Amino acid sequence: QLNGNADPNANTFKILIATDNHVGYMEKDPIRGNDSFEAFEEILQLAQENEVDFVLLGGDLFHDNKPSRKCLHTTMTLLRQYCLGERPCQMEFLSDQNENFPNRFATVNYQDPNFNIGMPVFSIHGNHDDPSGDGSLCALDLLSVAGLVNYFGKQVEVDDISIKPILLQKGTSKLALYGLGNVRDERLHRTFQKKKVKMYRPQEDTNEWFNLMAIHQNRIAHGPTNFIPETFLDEFLNLILWGHEHECLIEPVRNSVQDFWITQPGSSVATSLCEGEAVPKHVGLLSISGSEFKLDRIRLKKVRPFVMDEVILKEVEGLRPTDQNMVNEFLQDKVAELITIAMNEWKELNPDVPEVEWPKPLVRLKVEYGGGFTTFNPQRFGQVFVNRVANPKDILLFYRKRASTIATAKKKSE
Amino acid sequence: QLNGNADPNANTFKILIATDNHVGYMEKDPIRGNDSFEAFEEILQLAQENEVDFVLLGGDLFHDNKPSRKCLHTTMTLLRQYCLGERPCQMEFLSDQNENFPNRFATVNYQDPNFNIGMPVFSIHGNHDDPSGDGSLCALDLLSVAGLVNYFGKQVEVDDISIKPILLQKGTSKLALYGLGNVRDERLHRTFQKKKVKMYRPQEDTNEWFNLMAIHQNRIAHGPTNFIPETFLDEFLNLILWGHEHECLIEPVRNSVQDFWITQPGSSVATSLCEGEAVPKHVGLLSISGSEFKLDRIRLKKVRPFVMDEVILKEVEGLRPTDQNMVNEFLQDKVAELITIAMNEWKELNPDVPEVEWPKPLVRLKVEYGGGFTTFNPQRFGQVFVNRVANPKDILLFYRKRASTIATAKKKSE
Ligand SMILES: [Mn+2]
Ligand SMILES: [Mn+2]
Ligand SMILES: [Mn+2]
Ligand SMILES: [Mn+2]
Repeated sequence: QLNGNADPNANTFKILIATDNHVGYMEKDPIRGNDSFEAFEEILQLAQENEVDFVLLGGDLFHDNKPSRKCLHTTMTLLRQYCLGERPCQMEFLSDQNENFPNRFATVNYQDPNFNIGMPVFSIHGNHDDPSGDGSLCALDLLSVAGLVNYFGKQVEVDDISIKPILLQKGTSKLALYGLGNVRDERLHRTFQKKKVKMYRPQEDTNEWFNLMAIHQNRIAHGPTNFIPETFLDEFLNLILWGHEHECLIEPVRNSVQDFWITQPGSSVATSLCEGEAVPKHVGLLSISGSEFKLDRIRLKKVRPFVMDEVILKEVEGLRPTDQNMVNEFLQDKVAELITIAMNEWKELNPDVPEVEWPKPLVRLKVEYGGGFTTFNPQRFGQVFVNRVANPKDILLFYRKRASTIATAKKKSE
Repeated sequence: QLNGNADPNANTFKILIATDNHVGYMEKDPIRGNDSFEAFEEILQLAQENEVDFVLLGGDLFHDNKPSRKCLHTTMTLLRQYCLGERPCQMEFLSDQNENFPNRFATVNYQDPNFNIGMPVFSIHGNHDDPSGDGSLCALDLLSVAGLVNYFGKQVEVDDISIKPILLQKGTSKLALYGLGNVRDERLHRTFQKKKVKMYRPQEDTNEWFNLMAIHQNRIAHGPTNFIPETFLDEFLNLILWGHEHECLIEPVRNSVQDFWITQPGSSVATSLCEGEAVPKHVGLLSISGSEFKLDRIRLKKVRPFVMDEVILKEVEGLRPTDQNMVNEFLQDKVAELITIAMNEWKELNPDVPEVEWPKPLVRLKVEYGGGFTTFNPQRFGQVFVNRVANPKDILLFYRKRASTIATAKKKSE
């Protein structure tokens, strides 16, 4: 037995990846107030169940730059509950902790003798929770000084950036973890173009490291310089965890120019009722062994269901623009149908949850009203669904199709 | 040697007592911004040097109900630095931790296996840092969930109060620690009068406990019910740590009716330029052994010096009300004299501190200008002292003596 049961993960990093948890989002809403916290707790539970070596977050952990006391307290409670504990950490920490964590304690939490960390969390900041004000502190700095999170990727000088990786070794596997907290896109775009983003690589065994990077920027172009083209990133990287974009596109995509992979986990709570947020929410179980990686998606089951659909009224057979009741009835049927779809899917994911605990779904129906139809008050329309949907006031979104195509307006800040 | 060196403190609780640290007070002031933090750090250093069993704080740790991020971060940094560590705690915890700390973790920090606490801090809340808002949380709750402070004495129902003590044993000494966080004085006064403040005593060995209580209320009457008469407190108590009153009256005073003692440490930072705050700042080193206690005062040495004096212009020989220059010169000389007094005392306390590190003193001169004298702009007067005092803008306070006596207006909220 002494030699017989070698740990199959002895040489494999197991990492739970997630991003854009936006804890505190709509925390005062009587229905949706706990959604962000519940999703974050589900993520921590998944990390614990899967016995990961660590959790890696891609920014926007907090929705508000100044989280409320309750939000901060709840988040700290969850981290204390899930991350502290006896479980030993099997990762050697090889880089200079003073460089990775330039604060008074300069220590990765799981190596601080005063904390018992069973599951370390590493996080960069996003645009929602970036450092500001006196002392350039962010909410993550509070979690950091409390020993609850290892906050990395803060930049002092955004026009001249040096990124020194966190170097971790587990068995024979070596992981270099690069982090770049959010910088305003235009500014970072310029810094990249000026070749002022320097990525440091370990001098020893330079080619033996798996290079993982966390970044929190626009990935989709919103203007000529208002995003970071993937190709700006160094080609020595193996995998990039891309935060900020809320659509779950967690399946790694290869960038053929640079020969690296990108995974975009997306947010764990819908912060707007748009197409991107309606994609089922996932987090990733990332395994890294030598130069190989594998990413298993894990569906977040408890997340409030969100369905979205679109109708073009003038294309509906038999619908008369002048018959307001008829239109109303048609839309009500459509919404009821969407509720059923949402709930059926949720119940399938959560077969053991009793009916009293079923959540009300988020429902968004986009209504193209060209062709003589008229808009009406969406709030009044929603009153019928008060007990059946989580967002009765804004189920319907009226719009007119433009000559070209529908611009699916993307929220500027995610 | 095995039996020869019994710990002389084996049966003695050593407790550092302090109160009203008001961290964050004037934190944006370029001169005085760090005063509150430096005083708090000096207190933690004293506690560490004296190897106390714990620190007991009497409320108003924070000046603002919603401390700034920097204030919270600095406070957490200090607590992490001084309170965490290997030093073993020698106190048995005998009461029900669920009752003393009714939160998700319900654990005194030094017994939580996930934290290494070398020097626990216990604190009640004051009126400046009382629980409020959603979830009735206060800033101390954040320190508590971070494992940095044991927050006790929170009341759910202020019209019907039950106080269950923290029970600690060290060797043969037994300590029952009662805490009552601040409640609006009028309301608490009424609750006391209705006999609705119940103090629970341990059923076993009831008379063998030393009963220490921390309270944060007006001790001085500001109206018929706007304070808590000492005699409202139970006579089984041995010693009361009275917070909220900022004047240092740390020498225990016996209440002859109830036969208990009261110590009032006072604030560690002057939050107003009044007589009470000009009394030298101290904290206490409290030793409790069986039913005996001893309180050694410790002067806070680093605290910014503060001198206060008063002149009655019409009583100054030869001073002519019409000669503005003469009056001005007289007052300047007086202020210069006060600066010298303040600095001489400070240097005596801090003989080894080089001149570049000497603080500018706080100086307050009250000027009675009756008898034909006129007031003038204190800000302009102070310009001469910009490099020599910490409060150049409000050195002078003009007043008129009333027919009776001078009302030394006490700030309503301390
Ligand atoms: Mn973002
Ligand atoms: Mn986001
Ligand atoms: Mn007070
Ligand atoms: Mn106070």
